[in-house]
Amino acid sequence: MQNKQSGFDIDLGNQCSQNAFSWAKKTFANRAGKAGQVVLKVDGAFSNMLDFNGVKIGITSDGIGTKIEVAERTGIYDTLGYDLVAMVADDLIAGGFVPTNISNIIDVDNLDYNIIDQLMRGLHHAANFAGIAVTGGEIAELGSRISGWGNNMHFNWCSTAIGVLHPRLQHPVDGSAVHEGDAVIALRSRGFRSNGFSAVRKIMQEQFGNQWHTQPYSDGQSWGEILLTPSLIFAPAVTNVINEGIGIKGIAHITGGGIADNFRRVLKVNRMGANLHNLFEPHPFMVQLANYGHVTPQQAYLYWNMGNGMLLITANKDAEKTVELLNTAGEYQAQVAGHITAKRRITIETVWGSIITALENE
Amino acid sequence: MQNKQSGFDIDLGNQCSQNAFSWAKKTFANRAGKAGQVVLKVDGAFSNMLDFNGVKIGITSDGIGTKIEVAERTGIYDTLGYDLVAMVADDLIAGGFVPTNISNIIDVDNLDYNIIDQLMRGLHHAANFAGIAVTGGEIAELGSRISGWGNNMHFNWCSTAIGVLHPRLQHPVDGSAVHEGDAVIALRSRGFRSNGFSAVRKIMQEQFGNQWHTQPYSDGQSWGEILLTPSLIFAPAVTNVINEGIGIKGIAHITGGGIADNFRRVLKVNRMGANLHNLFEPHPFMVQLANYGHVTPQQAYLYWNMGNGMLLITANKDAEKTVELLNTAGEYQAQVAGHITAKRRITIETVWGSIITALENE
Repeated sequence: MQNKQSGFDIDLGNQCSQNAFSWAKKTFANRAGKAGQVVLKVDGAFSNMLDFNGVKIGITSDGIGTKIEVAERTGIYDTLGYDLVAMVADDLIAGGFVPTNISNIIDVDNLDYNIIDQLMRGLHHAANFAGIAVTGGEIAELGSRISGWGNNMHFNWCSTAIGVLHPRLQHPVDGSAVHEGDAVIALRSRGFRSNGFSAVRKIMQEQFGNQWHTQPYSDGQSWGEILLTPSLIFAPAVTNVINEGIGIKGIAHITGGGIADNFRRVLKVNRMGANLHNLFEPHPFMVQLANYGHVTPQQAYLYWNMGNGMLLITANKDAEKTVELLNTAGEYQAQVAGHITAKRRITIETVWGSIITALENE
Repeated sequence: MQNKQSGFDIDLGNQCSQNAFSWAKKTFANRAGKAGQVVLKVDGAFSNMLDFNGVKIGITSDGIGTKIEVAERTGIYDTLGYDLVAMVADDLIAGGFVPTNISNIIDVDNLDYNIIDQLMRGLHHAANFAGIAVTGGEIAELGSRISGWGNNMHFNWCSTAIGVLHPRLQHPVDGSAVHEGDAVIALRSRGFRSNGFSAVRKIMQEQFGNQWHTQPYSDGQSWGEILLTPSLIFAPAVTNVINEGIGIKGIAHITGGGIADNFRRVLKVNRMGANLHNLFEPHPFMVQLANYGHVTPQQAYLYWNMGNGMLLITANKDAEKTVELLNTAGEYQAQVAGHITAKRRITIETVWGSIITALENE
């Protein structure tokens, strides 16, 4: 499977994002020295931090992409709220911001009251899980501009979340304290979050045809249900670790681009590398999908989280206590996955052998 | 034209919004007494105000609906940014919040670099106009879940903006100081903002067929171009009035539902009414559209802003100075449009006679 065959052109996506960022950057001066001032990192990169009279606010926006089609196929609408909250809450905590509020926008073709009710019920449960308040929302009826699978209401769902810099932190968590020998701790994902579904849907379609979601997976669960598995929201567990005074040096939320693309940003600041020899194993259904689609291990680890939803970096001495705190905070599973290296590459040990991502030229 | 024929069922829309709000409300307790606390109005209604250690932040989300189709038809993409900023910035200032930052999400079917560039260029210009920083964004490729007119990239565009309570204000502007005899000041709109386009498109289609946007309007402008006229962003002008120490008692941003639905919220708090005998006249193309579509004056004033994009309430003694401040702040046009009455109804004097909206039963 080629990258382009996953449905989208990743390079073009990056070019468009860079273009959008370059225009956005020209507007930062509008708030210089005022409320809402944009705080830049040392290297000029945007840290998503705004300063309001000394109160440090993080802000991030994201949607849940085409995972929505799986809800349309299965008719299960009350778990997507966890995916929506996870995308933004876990982006915030990855910078050291405790998520506090979420605003959401549902674009629909035509309204269905019961589906809206199930979506919002799920968002309410997820917000309670994450300890945040849903403080804004909009439902827009856009007719034929929105489409999807089947005959029920079709919709796209996105959100913006804000949070405050954790009171124990002076600066956002950005990787600037990462050094050789530090520990990398992995948090286990429950399954697919809201990334990689274009590839998932393409593979399932080719393997099982139009009604792929009804195919049995195991234990009475269909493939549709297993792929819909709601995201585990990591923010509360990570907040708890910071509460205990443990210094978290870097956090990567494993979204589109997998471990390589998300973890490299944290490593970039101090020009480090990592050897990840003890990650959680991929979920069996991810392996099965990779087999169905003739996806190489490299590609699978680029499209999907492969069992690891978040990576944290701590001093080696803090690793054991951090893992213990995470493992006792509910249903989270954490383990030391590897270490930071001076050598500028990410090595991932997998059941298929090593996957090496070179970082030298960054 | 029946309400349902405008494209959407307004009652169902309201029911869904109320459902969403009722679920959201159950999450407010998650931030009680903490950063991001949701501040409620006296009557329990949500004021969109969050408290961060004493810093009062406003937050609002909206999109630009189906006005995007007019951009797709005309191929002009660099003005929609004004519409996007106007929807959220003017909702914030309507509460007394000075908009500071905007985060935006573009959902596309397939990416076109040049169109993204034009959209973001326009957003950048609009952000500069409004004095805000674009501090977050996401471009999501959703394939066939997104569609639209013609063969170029299709997209939907929404945003969340935050702002700070104007430093001269102790509380949000919510109508609680409105009394009989106060002045109502209208700010002239440039044309359609981002509301009422379902009705507009339906009427144009019936009048001129599929290529309606190419029909000449006047002075070399096509109907497509006139309907695309970018929104005037009112927030800077209103901020300027508050800067001068003038007490603004109520502000209504005239969006979907027109004057009646938006102004009634401001009047509701103190159970007042209004007599608006001197509004700006509707733009000629709005009158022409109403004629084409056999839209009654009542309906036209409910679908569209009819020339008045924002209404402000001040003490009568402050009205003249407020109008003067607004009229000298660039391209804004303001005039005293009428007065607050004890009688619980909104009377709008139009070229077609009086339109009366009863408020007694609220």
